Amino acid sequence: MTEMIEKTEQLPDLESFQPEEMTELLNGNHAELINRIKAILSYPGFIYLSAANKETYREKVLEWCQVLAKERLGALGYPKEFGGGGDLGSYFVAMETLSYHDLSLVIKFGVQFGLFGMSIMFLGTEKHHRKYLSKAGSLELPGSFAMTETGHGSNVRDVETTATFDPSKNEFVINTPSDNARKDYIGNAARHGRMATVFAQLITNDRNYGVHAFLVPMRNENGETLLGIKIEDCGEKLGLNGVDNGRIWFNQVRIPAENMLDKFATVDKNGLYSSPIKSDSTRFFTMLGTLVGGRIGIPKAALSASKSALTIAIRYASIRRQFGLPGKPEIPLLDYRTHQRRLIPYLTNAYALHFSLEYLTTRFLNRSEEDMREIEALAAGLKSWGTWNATQTIQECREACGGKGYLAENRFAALKADTDIFTTFEGDNTVLMQLVAKSRLTDFKQEFHDINFFGVMKYIATQAAVAITEKNPVITRRTDDEHLLDPEFHLAAFKYRERSILISAANRLKHHLKEGRNSFEAFNQCQNHLVELAFAYIELVILEQFQNKLNSLEVGNLKDTLTNVYNLFALSQIEKNKGWYLEADYLESTKSKAIRRIVNRICGVLRFDAKGLVDAFDIPDELIGAPIGLAQA
Amino acid sequence: MTEMIEKTEQLPDLESFQPEEMTELLNGNHAELINRIKAILSYPGFIYLSAANKETYREKVLEWCQVLAKERLGALGYPKEFGGGGDLGSYFVAMETLSYHDLSLVIKFGVQFGLFGMSIMFLGTEKHHRKYLSKAGSLELPGSFAMTETGHGSNVRDVETTATFDPSKNEFVINTPSDNARKDYIGNAARHGRMATVFAQLITNDRNYGVHAFLVPMRNENGETLLGIKIEDCGEKLGLNGVDNGRIWFNQVRIPAENMLDKFATVDKNGLYSSPIKSDSTRFFTMLGTLVGGRIGIPKAALSASKSALTIAIRYASIRRQFGLPGKPEIPLLDYRTHQRRLIPYLTNAYALHFSLEYLTTRFLNRSEEDMREIEALAAGLKSWGTWNATQTIQECREACGGKGYLAENRFAALKADTDIFTTFEGDNTVLMQLVAKSRLTDFKQEFHDINFFGVMKYIATQAAVAITEKNPVITRRTDDEHLLDPEFHLAAFKYRERSILISAANRLKHHLKEGRNSFEAFNQCQNHLVELAFAYIELVILEQFQNKLNSLEVGNLKDTLTNVYNLFALSQIEKNKGWYLEADYLESTKSKAIRRIVNRICGVLRFDAKGLVDAFDIPDELIGAPIGLAQA
Repeated sequence: MTEMIEKTEQLPDLESFQPEEMTELLNGNHAELINRIKAILSYPGFIYLSAANKETYREKVLEWCQVLAKERLGALGYPKEFGGGGDLGSYFVAMETLSYHDLSLVIKFGVQFGLFGMSIMFLGTEKHHRKYLSKAGSLELPGSFAMTETGHGSNVRDVETTATFDPSKNEFVINTPSDNARKDYIGNAARHGRMATVFAQLITNDRNYGVHAFLVPMRNENGETLLGIKIEDCGEKLGLNGVDNGRIWFNQVRIPAENMLDKFATVDKNGLYSSPIKSDSTRFFTMLGTLVGGRIGIPKAALSASKSALTIAIRYASIRRQFGLPGKPEIPLLDYRTHQRRLIPYLTNAYALHFSLEYLTTRFLNRSEEDMREIEALAAGLKSWGTWNATQTIQECREACGGKGYLAENRFAALKADTDIFTTFEGDNTVLMQLVAKSRLTDFKQEFHDINFFGVMKYIATQAAVAITEKNPVITRRTDDEHLLDPEFHLAAFKYRERSILISAANRLKHHLKEGRNSFEAFNQCQNHLVELAFAYIELVILEQFQNKLNSLEVGNLKDTLTNVYNLFALSQIEKNKGWYLEADYLESTKSKAIRRIVNRICGVLRFDAKGLVDAFDIPDELIGAPIGLAQA
Repeated sequence: MTEMIEKTEQLPDLESFQPEEMTELLNGNHAELINRIKAILSYPGFIYLSAANKETYREKVLEWCQVLAKERLGALGYPKEFGGGGDLGSYFVAMETLSYHDLSLVIKFGVQFGLFGMSIMFLGTEKHHRKYLSKAGSLELPGSFAMTETGHGSNVRDVETTATFDPSKNEFVINTPSDNARKDYIGNAARHGRMATVFAQLITNDRNYGVHAFLVPMRNENGETLLGIKIEDCGEKLGLNGVDNGRIWFNQVRIPAENMLDKFATVDKNGLYSSPIKSDSTRFFTMLGTLVGGRIGIPKAALSASKSALTIAIRYASIRRQFGLPGKPEIPLLDYRTHQRRLIPYLTNAYALHFSLEYLTTRFLNRSEEDMREIEALAAGLKSWGTWNATQTIQECREACGGKGYLAENRFAALKADTDIFTTFEGDNTVLMQLVAKSRLTDFKQEFHDINFFGVMKYIATQAAVAITEKNPVITRRTDDEHLLDPEFHLAAFKYRERSILISAANRLKHHLKEGRNSFEAFNQCQNHLVELAFAYIELVILEQFQNKLNSLEVGNLKDTLTNVYNLFALSQIEKNKGWYLEADYLESTKSKAIRRIVNRICGVLRFDAKGLVDAFDIPDELIGAPIGLAQA
């Protein structure tokens, strides 16, 4: 079917691309750890459970976590002095690699070693580290992270659980004032957790100092629930049934004062509250900010699940044949343009996300305090973009495999069901995207604040000049390959979009405020606009990081292949947003149509590399599991 | 939060809309049957199984089907003389209503009474009707529909199972030549089916006459598999685990000649083949055409599932509160613009689909032979559009309910999993959309064929005139409510889109053929274009039918409400396709932006009717099942 592909000189030739080289690039300097984890997950003991009974499944997942703890993977991110590996980066690599396996496993792993253990690490002080970290890392102390309440999912600041200081006994009293305030969906709570990091309103001397975290014992060593604690099983869920999510009520539960995680605030024995951070609001966000790691783990897990789905669907599409010329053999699905269009752009999204998550992780690991707002926005945005992308990728892969894709043995059932909640937990995506937008608006405000009147005038003039250059008819109509494949064009287009939406959102907000609406109402009026701003921002970041990655490569086959992947990512994003670009007169019709044509062409070229590009994810057959998706199928 | 809604004089006021009246409109003249079925499904025996074991689940679903058979619902569509209700329309109503319940139930029901029973009814002759129809309708004879093979899903014409006539014994020999030719995913096969309608290549006197249907016994009355038949369970599936899908191999299985379903062709005792339809191809498509009813049932089931999901999500969004002004109560999710934008357009899609499926059913029930190609295209297109829409609707509803939506008790788990295969079975959507497009291209060719040269010139002139009128700057820039809410504008826009894509697709195909590509390759080059044509066509049909429904209503509150629903449907479709409209210069930027604003406004107005509009679906609480979605929640 090669004659069906329109060839072009501009698209690099890809004949000798080596998947192994690409694997090396993706693994970076973590190859050893990644291979070690893949080897562990390929042990016979890790064979997927089929048609599991919920309770059996939960026990198996706990067992798996115990094996991983024994292999010292759980404590990778904790300081060495408390039995850890002293390398937070390795912890993220572990999350990512474990996500090629059962996702209940990685979520249980994340609850125990990430949410529970790292809340102690980041919100607690040395006494907590000494007492609990090595036990958390070895799974001797199974724990939960009890933040969400039934009535308060996204709105953490308004949780209702209270922690009231009692100076007479130097204790905090943890209490659930209503059913709406019970802790809900708490992983590791229904069966295995013995202690929980509980987020509650700290009250001392009759004053509420806002949300703080406390270590609250839930069960004794025999697994019996402690006095004053009521735990209920959340029951069957859409997916992740190997995780024992539960609901927790606290009835005047007393804990020693030292169980307050006191990195950011303390209460002395007289009940006097003090904190190095004066503003309640700043303290709250600083505290939450330290937990941003959770938001990095989720899109990494989502990406690994997407890679599994793509591997299965693209390998199947390479061998499954259907229809064709009369009297000739049927042709592979991947030769069909609709099939290329369905799958290959999601494959390029996976590569793009890989590099941007790598960037986010590096930023997080090397963070300074001033970086935090930006890193939080990046994490929130990439979490949302990445998890929505996973939902779409896996869905498209399932459909592309037809009836085969519907059989549980081919793993889409689990991949779909288990990742479905990723768009909700660690922050609802729609809410997170608004945080991203607000962060961009804050940047914007500061930018104006930092420059004087002439600076503003100059800024506006620059913007106008950009508009004049880029929206020049010569540019808006250019349809030649050289221009369409020019990274400068992509970057300018992505930047222009982000900047324009940012400016118009700021103007609209100002307008609504001027008309007398309060800020809540003004934001609500612009909500969709803000979500679009967040998309534009995150897509710009992803593009920039992909470009940076390409620029770091030496000339050669690997770079050529990745250039095609990059081009398809960049152009298919512009195509996705063509309504916006046309509306903004940034593209003319002829150019928009030319983009569609070149996207078709690149899909046609990458069709021949698609299998190599999924092989490069290097997911062992034992973890792929699906009979239709094995390397040798 | 009412002040957040920009009011407009042009949008009808909706204060006194009565959900009961809307229910009446939706039910048409089937209210009695619908209510009878809802009452049956509300029996305690029909309580949903939770966390079901697959085998228990399958037996329960069989039991439910037996109850429905006893209530004479299965045979509703069969002729009265064979124990049926003599009303195919009622059968479709039953499918639609049963789909508010467990979807394994409706699929098992559809396999038995629709696919199996109706293949006998439509492909067989009186001897088959007399012998089998009443037994199929009473479920005394559980049956399967064995068309799909492992290697041949969409490409039915190339199935490999053979039915070779043996004149010495006046028998057909049914045989599976290879593992790829085993019948696959066959409902009712793994456990309960005793007979199957098997599609196989008819061979007699050494000639292959193409695919025909045969009744092949599979099991005896004790449920034991017969000699020469091998059946394997498909095992766990992503959803629909209450249906016993299986794989069937035939090893030289002999059946009497009379078991050939001989409505369209016969083989006499000497092996002489004859058919009233001379062309093998025409006969094949005529035969498949009679089975188009199955493609009507699926989008109806998908629509009911969408209605259930919307009922749950919109009721929950009306009571669930999150965030708000400091010191004030939190506000309901449905007051948020993003939430309105997520859910309300899907609600209007549900109404739009309801009316177009009503139209399709009427067309099918009153079909003449000349209508068939159009009806098949309508069924294929509405099946695809409706099932993709269901996947999206249910996904958005799940996400809009956050963590609550992830709990199995709130039913999204089942709704998502069970409907997921709807985009694949009864024809893969991407393949079906190409059939739709091909049908439109055939119409187009005929249109040109029927008119002479001057006619063609006149036609082109008319097209140009339309372009000149509608693409006049005065029109492409109009942004006033009167114009944007004018059904003539909507109709013209939808028609223009369909017509333009049709003409350009025809031209591109011609171009590729002229360049020497064969027709298969030419079609592959245009595949995405063709899918877009199918979308444009189906959306035009849906719009027209919604307009017809509105025109049939008397002035009043009901019509006012439905007008808003209609407007949102029409405008949000144009908004969805704005990239195309801008590219075609049919809209200018200002108008495209005005459409976005008015879509926001209508969402804001319909926010107050959203609950009434889902109440009007009138799904009993017993069937809603979800605690967060009950009428009195």
